[in-house]
Amino acid sequence: MKIWDKGIAVDKKIEQFTVGKDRELDLYLARFDVQASKAQASMLAKVGLISEEENQQLQIGLSELAAQIAEGTFTIDESFEDVHSKIEAYLTEKFGDAGKKIHTARSRNDQVLTAIQLFLKDYTEQAATQIMALVDVLLHKAEAHQADLMPGYTHFQAAMPSSFGLWFSAYAEHLLLDLALLEAAHTVADQNPLGSGAGFGSSFPIDRQLTTQEMGFSQLAVSSVGAQMLRGKTEKTVAFALAGVGATLSKMAYDLVLYNSQDLAFVELPAAFTTGSSIMPHKKNPDVFELVRARCNALQGLPTTIMLATNNLPSGYHRDFQILKEILFEPMMQFLDILDILLFALPELKIKPDLLNQSKYDGVFSVENINQLIQAGVPFREAYKQVGIAVNEGNYVPHREFHTTHLGSVHNLGLTEIHGKVAQVREKSRVLQSR
Amino acid sequence: MKIWDKGIAVDKKIEQFTVGKDRELDLYLARFDVQASKAQASMLAKVGLISEEENQQLQIGLSELAAQIAEGTFTIDESFEDVHSKIEAYLTEKFGDAGKKIHTARSRNDQVLTAIQLFLKDYTEQAATQIMALVDVLLHKAEAHQADLMPGYTHFQAAMPSSFGLWFSAYAEHLLLDLALLEAAHTVADQNPLGSGAGFGSSFPIDRQLTTQEMGFSQLAVSSVGAQMLRGKTEKTVAFALAGVGATLSKMAYDLVLYNSQDLAFVELPAAFTTGSSIMPHKKNPDVFELVRARCNALQGLPTTIMLATNNLPSGYHRDFQILKEILFEPMMQFLDILDILLFALPELKIKPDLLNQSKYDGVFSVENINQLIQAGVPFREAYKQVGIAVNEGNYVPHREFHTTHLGSVHNLGLTEIHGKVAQVREKSRVLQSR
Amino acid sequence: MKIWDKGIAVDKKIEQFTVGKDRELDLYLARFDVQASKAQASMLAKVGLISEEENQQLQIGLSELAAQIAEGTFTIDESFEDVHSKIEAYLTEKFGDAGKKIHTARSRNDQVLTAIQLFLKDYTEQAATQIMALVDVLLHKAEAHQADLMPGYTHFQAAMPSSFGLWFSAYAEHLLLDLALLEAAHTVADQNPLGSGAGFGSSFPIDRQLTTQEMGFSQLAVSSVGAQMLRGKTEKTVAFALAGVGATLSKMAYDLVLYNSQDLAFVELPAAFTTGSSIMPHKKNPDVFELVRARCNALQGLPTTIMLATNNLPSGYHRDFQILKEILFEPMMQFLDILDILLFALPELKIKPDLLNQSKYDGVFSVENINQLIQAGVPFREAYKQVGIAVNEGNYVPHREFHTTHLGSVHNLGLTEIHGKVAQVREKSRVLQSR
Amino acid sequence: MKIWDKGIAVDKKIEQFTVGKDRELDLYLARFDVQASKAQASMLAKVGLISEEENQQLQIGLSELAAQIAEGTFTIDESFEDVHSKIEAYLTEKFGDAGKKIHTARSRNDQVLTAIQLFLKDYTEQAATQIMALVDVLLHKAEAHQADLMPGYTHFQAAMPSSFGLWFSAYAEHLLLDLALLEAAHTVADQNPLGSGAGFGSSFPIDRQLTTQEMGFSQLAVSSVGAQMLRGKTEKTVAFALAGVGATLSKMAYDLVLYNSQDLAFVELPAAFTTGSSIMPHKKNPDVFELVRARCNALQGLPTTIMLATNNLPSGYHRDFQILKEILFEPMMQFLDILDILLFALPELKIKPDLLNQSKYDGVFSVENINQLIQAGVPFREAYKQVGIAVNEGNYVPHREFHTTHLGSVHNLGLTEIHGKVAQVREKSRVLQSR
Repeated sequence: MKIWDKGIAVDKKIEQFTVGKDRELDLYLARFDVQASKAQASMLAKVGLISEEENQQLQIGLSELAAQIAEGTFTIDESFEDVHSKIEAYLTEKFGDAGKKIHTARSRNDQVLTAIQLFLKDYTEQAATQIMALVDVLLHKAEAHQADLMPGYTHFQAAMPSSFGLWFSAYAEHLLLDLALLEAAHTVADQNPLGSGAGFGSSFPIDRQLTTQEMGFSQLAVSSVGAQMLRGKTEKTVAFALAGVGATLSKMAYDLVLYNSQDLAFVELPAAFTTGSSIMPHKKNPDVFELVRARCNALQGLPTTIMLATNNLPSGYHRDFQILKEILFEPMMQFLDILDILLFALPELKIKPDLLNQSKYDGVFSVENINQLIQAGVPFREAYKQVGIAVNEGNYVPHREFHTTHLGSVHNLGLTEIHGKVAQVREKSRVLQSR
Repeated sequence: MKIWDKGIAVDKKIEQFTVGKDRELDLYLARFDVQASKAQASMLAKVGLISEEENQQLQIGLSELAAQIAEGTFTIDESFEDVHSKIEAYLTEKFGDAGKKIHTARSRNDQVLTAIQLFLKDYTEQAATQIMALVDVLLHKAEAHQADLMPGYTHFQAAMPSSFGLWFSAYAEHLLLDLALLEAAHTVADQNPLGSGAGFGSSFPIDRQLTTQEMGFSQLAVSSVGAQMLRGKTEKTVAFALAGVGATLSKMAYDLVLYNSQDLAFVELPAAFTTGSSIMPHKKNPDVFELVRARCNALQGLPTTIMLATNNLPSGYHRDFQILKEILFEPMMQFLDILDILLFALPELKIKPDLLNQSKYDGVFSVENINQLIQAGVPFREAYKQVGIAVNEGNYVPHREFHTTHLGSVHNLGLTEIHGKVAQVREKSRVLQSR
Repeated sequence: MKIWDKGIAVDKKIEQFTVGKDRELDLYLARFDVQASKAQASMLAKVGLISEEENQQLQIGLSELAAQIAEGTFTIDESFEDVHSKIEAYLTEKFGDAGKKIHTARSRNDQVLTAIQLFLKDYTEQAATQIMALVDVLLHKAEAHQADLMPGYTHFQAAMPSSFGLWFSAYAEHLLLDLALLEAAHTVADQNPLGSGAGFGSSFPIDRQLTTQEMGFSQLAVSSVGAQMLRGKTEKTVAFALAGVGATLSKMAYDLVLYNSQDLAFVELPAAFTTGSSIMPHKKNPDVFELVRARCNALQGLPTTIMLATNNLPSGYHRDFQILKEILFEPMMQFLDILDILLFALPELKIKPDLLNQSKYDGVFSVENINQLIQAGVPFREAYKQVGIAVNEGNYVPHREFHTTHLGSVHNLGLTEIHGKVAQVREKSRVLQSR
Repeated sequence: MKIWDKGIAVDKKIEQFTVGKDRELDLYLARFDVQASKAQASMLAKVGLISEEENQQLQIGLSELAAQIAEGTFTIDESFEDVHSKIEAYLTEKFGDAGKKIHTARSRNDQVLTAIQLFLKDYTEQAATQIMALVDVLLHKAEAHQADLMPGYTHFQAAMPSSFGLWFSAYAEHLLLDLALLEAAHTVADQNPLGSGAGFGSSFPIDRQLTTQEMGFSQLAVSSVGAQMLRGKTEKTVAFALAGVGATLSKMAYDLVLYNSQDLAFVELPAAFTTGSSIMPHKKNPDVFELVRARCNALQGLPTTIMLATNNLPSGYHRDFQILKEILFEPMMQFLDILDILLFALPELKIKPDLLNQSKYDGVFSVENINQLIQAGVPFREAYKQVGIAVNEGNYVPHREFHTTHLGSVHNLGLTEIHGKVAQVREKSRVLQSR
């Protein structure tokens, strides 16, 4: 069973082990490595490390690659170990020495790191934009369903009258809050590490502020040692953000799966999002929402995996960081799919009417019964007792009429105020404005 | 072995199980429950649910409690299950019915949640302030040690010349970045849930914007359902922030413990922070830094524990949330102790001089040897080969002179630029400005 | 805000930080440190490192301490940093030099580790015994409720007829399986590290097999380096085991909390284990089961916290290991409380009769309707279609009679077979036999 | 950006989302689904639910599939959603109605679960066998290097003389202990769930003990509800086991990466397992061991991800369980690659001689100096003081001669005893005997 018994050359085995899934995963980075290489070439020309003519060649070659990437024709075949060697080889084949010079005053470490920073920064912006679209959907639903009452639960017990208006707007406000973590991830990704070399800089007279501007980074990761330490940290902060939004969406999916049971039967899920059973003709299984929940829950495990892979490593580069790509990139893409699915499914959600007319929910009005007695002059303790006795003896008659006035209550959702919060986020959030 | 065989009354056992460590942990919340109760009383008077006279009484009683808390004389004895019952009992005993009325239009759920929001908001501000103090210490050290060279490591291998200036400033910049997560935690904590009742509001005509202002919250958690959903989310976001800073401090401690070994011997730790061995007289064990590392690593486990305790619970209150206090509060306090210890220890750190003169580090200058050959006209590949042969044959002579110019390199730390980043954070960060 | 500004001596602060909660937590270890010290003294006398008279003195002193511990009068006051110094001081005060000699050929490292191994081994045995008691309770309930039908759910949808017999016996079998992880933890704890010193042995001619026998360990951790590496590993394996059982109990608690809702209303929880609401007289909140669930969920976070604290530390002792006591010991005790509470609560659980007569569950019989048609000669696809149409058009009449025969089905629980599995575990499991 | 704007049909999108990577991952299950289907067909014939002729046809068809799988020619094309539909379609196409009948008295739930149980059981056996091969390698190295001394570290400080014999045998013993978790995983996987249907059994008169025997399971998961609850639990227990072994291998890799630095320089890694640097000719980077470490660390995150995905789901099937395949299967395969790489690399490891002759390690002999003074009649405290003063004043002369006698010490590794432990595991362990 040992490798040398299998007829596989040891070298091949080791190469597979060390390269891992880089060729596949690096496709996500291609666009950003090109962007960074363009900035690098311009800067090298500005400070005189390459000629302006060489820069022109490099810009042309890199633009060609950018076009291939945009068209989806760019590939990384087995003769290259990663996207970076592929791009360099393309330039070198095309322009000879000028191609080789793109790597002047740059190390593989800061090159990879820069592409990752750009990719993760772009990703947080894309995710934030989709989340805001979901906020809009939820607020639209909240408005449409403000009159649709439902029981509000505490301890899994039907407790008080609530409404789908409150429920939808709750998730809208929470997604808005979740942007705070995406904002943090964006801040960390928005640091330029280019020029930090292998983590200790170089003696080349490069201009790091110039590349910062060229690539649209807000800040330079000044200390070269600190720049290198971004590796793993940016990934982890993105993972925190996904875990945060994931938790919100998982809870929403959990609610919906529960609300779809025959016992509660609050909602009707869009047909395309449920499946039947091959042996039970009465069932409408909420598979898509279960998978949304499960994938969002798995996202919450990402920070731990990243921490375990990177914790207790002293400062400086370690090859360990390479595996963060395989830990993080695929779940990141799955998360966009989840947003996409929800953006389609939620508008289709049907709410069942008149839920609170069912006698099993009579109890949710007991607080109103008590309030009514209080208004009639009965002291609270006495009123509570009277209603409690009625409940226990089975002759309780629910006082179904109630009217709320305060912000965030059944009859006053405060949607204007929530829209105000949305507007404020749109105005102040950097992760949204950058797009 | 069963409970009813032990002579312990079942009720007692169950009470212990359900109350848990609340009496102890609630002391952290006392100040904030008083603050929230004051806001609640004022508002109730404003909207006419209590009289102005009753409000005056309540304000007096609450101010007395605030004074006791500030003096450290406030306690929660066994006759109360938590801080909230204690405070209410104090007011009721003192003012009779007026005392009872403090709980008008409020449920235990929103009351506890409000106190937690205020506490966590205050905590993030306190932690951020201490972190900034540490940033200052690190930048001061960076300046003092900019000429102290050290080997820079990649793959645990001495790779290139680096310096303690780069090392200290790296950690300063990273702590600055870590504030982004604290900022996110502050944003989530800075939402007022008061008035959301058990999570579905009430029919009392309360003014939630008034209490928002009174307590200094930036925003109202509008939807009552959403307000209740803050439970667990704010705690988790604080945990993310502590995990973030914890990772940075753990790495710094790891470096220092390693640098204190006889093999590297880069630093001398302050004597008060090391211990000897009872059987090995030659040892200086870096116990404090190991414990800083270990506790910071344990902090990184907090998000997972909180997620596991709260994930896959549908919306609405569950008693499960209660245990977040015992999961989170003690580590939060330990974290402040860690900052405190580091603020004392780091200024005392001694750096060993002339580290790069040791022959085992000769190799770190090989890049400079190559650069020198290149400047003398030798092509890169040829230069690399020459130096490589010299290294292998043992006749390599390191080119120890080198000069760097770019921002973030050994001879240009860019401290001015980093101080600029510090100033920007101080100016824009809400978590810092609130203090 | 810095420590030296607070009037607290730095030394005091550092001492607090390094000692942590050791004095409190070490009380769990006291009994085991005494046991190990007795074995150590006997062995030292056997190999001639102390005299038989000295051994007699030490045995007497240690027996006195054992009695104090058993009576609960043993304490560790502030003049000692941990239980080990306390015990040594007691012996030295009493017997002078003989007392000091207990530490011959022993280091604090192997001493602490040995006490922890003994403690964790004993703990796994205690926990396993209680779990088996719970298995008995569950099987008793399964038998009592084999005729109590309930809907079986898939995708949170009532799917097919199930029973409380199947439900109770399911959890019994799962707890039995969970013993496999406790067995693994017991195996790791059942290794004797005494004599490994600081992790590299010593030149004293000690007999490590003798102490292995004396303390009742099954095996010697032979390599001194490997013995030291048990630190953290045993704790983690215990944490895996608690996480495993915790998941089973959490799921059971989750089911019960759900079954207690008005929507399902399958069970009636024992009154002492529910609480009412101060404002909603109709509620019976399942607080105890929610707290069981939450604490069992928090237990599942333990492995991560331990991993984060100990991962990526090279071999050899690090002070970091000390904090595992504060991470693990308290949750371990909480877990015993949980078992205790469940052993009391589960026998009291009431099951509601005739659940499947409710029309909302008619659909669960659809498989039986189909089977009936098949038996009457209708092909499966056609039968499925007929029943499906009936369900959709609302004229479906459930075929409520059904009879199952196979092992593990509603009408054949296979309790004899399950009892056989219980007997096999009782016979083969070392974690159970040791008691 | 929404799905319906992209020209992708919604149905296609949803199908992709729900099918996920099943087609790819199910290839691991193919062999086991065939095995289970064979057992199912035999049993159905035995109890008369199909004819013996139909059984013969099914056995032939399934054997053909088994041959395709063994040859690597079996594929699952896009017209099938998973391996189970593919196999059923093959049988149906070939044998008409007989093919369809394979699914009699079976649901997709118990079918998938059975294949997973068989797969995970087989996997644990395969992994255990490879781990034992690694134990052999380590013990061989321990013997070969028993005379190679090295400094033993505590607190990252060179503390006492140790040896590579102790180091190698330590890891051998730990891998042996790690088998206890694999044994637990094997026990959980070794339960037959077939016949539990959708989790509530069926009214078919199947013989579940017969299929248990046919498939070689040790036990029947009796309760159908409990059988279904294995989903997620077996995966998690396998994850615990991988996390356990992973931690041991990660620590070993960490040691080696550290020992490969210029500062310690204890080992020479096999050339094929290191890489050079493109800019630093003096470097030998231990990439393979860093990747072993990183992947082993990522394995430690698996239990958390599985817990988060499955925790707080009530009993019964949920679609969530499907994603466990994508969480677990790939890391499982990576783990086998890691073992493979180590089995090749470790025998090639070179140890540097005479490490303790370096003056920086003089201090490790201080305990011996003290012992020598004690033997010359100096009391311990005085001896410790004398040596301590000598160390501080720089005139300490290490006493390099020492001799140890106890089991597990430098000069008495106890390899015979460790081989005895190996033999005992080989004899008693079910996870090893099954192969």
